[in-house]
Amino acid sequence: MSTNNASALWTGTLKEGRGEMRFTNFNGPFTFSSRFEDGSETNPEELVGAAHAGCYSMFLSALISGAGLTPASIETKATISLEKDDVGPNITNITLDCNVECDGLSHEKFEELTAAAKAKCPISRLYEGGTANIELNATLVVASN
Amino acid sequence: MSTNNASALWTGTLKEGRGEMRFTNFNGPFTFSSRFEDGSETNPEELVGAAHAGCYSMFLSALISGAGLTPASIETKATISLEKDDVGPNITNITLDCNVECDGLSHEKFEELTAAAKAKCPISRLYEGGTANIELNATLVVASN
Repeated sequence: MSTNNASALWTGTLKEGRGEMRFTNFNGPFTFSSRFEDGSETNPEELVGAAHAGCYSMFLSALISGAGLTPASIETKATISLEKDDVGPNITNITLDCNVECDGLSHEKFEELTAAAKAKCPISRLYEGGTANIELNATLVVASN
Repeated sequence: MSTNNASALWTGTLKEGRGEMRFTNFNGPFTFSSRFEDGSETNPEELVGAAHAGCYSMFLSALISGAGLTPASIETKATISLEKDDVGPNITNITLDCNVECDGLSHEKFEELTAAAKAKCPISRLYEGGTANIELNATLVVASN
């Protein structure tokens, strides 16, 4: 269907070295501090969360589009928890908080489609079965006219 | 240990709408075309690949650092294959091609540590058990003096 590429470079030791992650239109640094302490740069967990939030929002748009409606906005925030176990750091939880604005979408249909998108979007399916529990809180925002 | 956030916004239908993925120092658009056709923007698969390449490179640096050595560079390219099955699009394969430059690292130790990083890095553990097969090709680049 399609093939994509991305890359990363790490130079030096874990604590004194630094990394860069690269994909289309992005080349961003990361460090031990930005991953595990208070560094101001990014880290792999943020990319994992952005990918999930993006895929979930797009997949839910596909399902709503398939029902003949046009979503005004689907905004999803991902919160990624990194813990430590005997093996090392691991992602234990990803919570998606999603707000949907869409005229004509019933609450019943909303519940059905938001749950289906959680189960079926490609990034959910990539993460399913790994270390992370995936939670969804979805809200249908009703415009106040 | 730490909590990270990222987000995404999709507006409109699947094919005519557009999305944005957001994390620290990044706010990038994506569309149906940039995910499934020839659009020039990014997509969730690229972020998934960059996260894996970044985490793998950093984790391998940690293992090499732990062995008392300093890696000059660990460069990892991720290739992500998106296919389609009965449920929908799914990521079937992620290949990591990794080149390591490190004085004093034996081939035997290199083999041990590159395999350990594949099994133990947090992003590998997140993806493990999902739809994707994960492959690693690791090369120890020996400087020609």
